[in-house]
Amino acid sequence: MAESGKNKKVDNGVNVEALLEAREALTAAPEAAQFTWRASCQWMNGTHSHSTVERFFGLGQEQTHKKKFAFDADHPEIFASEDKGATPVEYVLVGLASCLTAGIAAVAQNRGIQLRSVSATVEGGMDIQGILGIDRDVRNGFDGIKVTYNIDADATPEEIKALVAQSQKRSAVYDVITNPTNVTVNVA
Amino acid sequence: MAESGKNKKVDNGVNVEALLEAREALTAAPEAAQFTWRASCQWMNGTHSHSTVERFFGLGQEQTHKKKFAFDADHPEIFASEDKGATPVEYVLVGLASCLTAGIAAVAQNRGIQLRSVSATVEGGMDIQGILGIDRDVRNGFDGIKVTYNIDADATPEEIKALVAQSQKRSAVYDVITNPTNVTVNVA
Repeated sequence: MAESGKNKKVDNGVNVEALLEAREALTAAPEAAQFTWRASCQWMNGTHSHSTVERFFGLGQEQTHKKKFAFDADHPEIFASEDKGATPVEYVLVGLASCLTAGIAAVAQNRGIQLRSVSATVEGGMDIQGILGIDRDVRNGFDGIKVTYNIDADATPEEIKALVAQSQKRSAVYDVITNPTNVTVNVA
Repeated sequence: MAESGKNKKVDNGVNVEALLEAREALTAAPEAAQFTWRASCQWMNGTHSHSTVERFFGLGQEQTHKKKFAFDADHPEIFASEDKGATPVEYVLVGLASCLTAGIAAVAQNRGIQLRSVSATVEGGMDIQGILGIDRDVRNGFDGIKVTYNIDADATPEEIKALVAQSQKRSAVYDVITNPTNVTVNVA
């Protein structure tokens, strides 16, 4: 469609040219595509912890974020905790929403679709009989997650749906949640 | 063991009595155990988004955190982004570390083990040929996650290992990452 096509000057703030160049460069040098993402977590008291994110490995070398990001996590007062931060499961929902949203912006830029606003609500259902050990048949995690987008863009409803679908297809966190990942936990 | 047993006054800041009472109450009224956790996400520009966590549903009614928690997510500068927040996948690592850490404190309290310090490092490997669409056989998410705990506690190394193992067994985020969860994404 000419009106939302690549000929129109579209700016969603995503440097698609740089991403396409990176794709070419990493196709030629796949060892540079091996990343390690990290977080550190310090127990404060009770269920309250303080985590930081600062360094990661990628493009063959250690990388540092522009600043250290810090996060408090806790359980709410109805669990007899002090509610000093979002719960760990809410952090996972933030990760999912932000991953899909970044993807929507990148795909829109690549498809020449100007976004005006994008917002999402994410809901994860959980039967806490699992984590409380009441019923062994109830899982500890979410019984399902529902994401709902409101998108205002220079595109048809079908183009907008296709944007969201393509973002899902390339989303790291969507993959982490919908597929199993091996986690090993050790004591030093 | 008497030295680390329940007779000793142990305070990890976790109200285990309240949790055990909650377990009893929810065993009698399992419908109160149905929770919904939520996050809202607003696209800012490029890959930068702003998410908030404030309300959730549980114990049969709407609940509100003591305050609204806010989180910026972005991609780093090496992805031609502005690095205005942690990456979405790092949020998942924060969720995992904080979930396991809260569990360790709760289990330690229940077992009469005094914790002095608990810290964790979490590393998730990722081949970004997946998210860049270079190789369809490479998954988008982590190829594995490694959590390493350093724990100083009034307990034997075996007791500490057992603490960590029990926390894993009851962790919501560990379950979300290691097992598949259905995610539906809709456009309103």
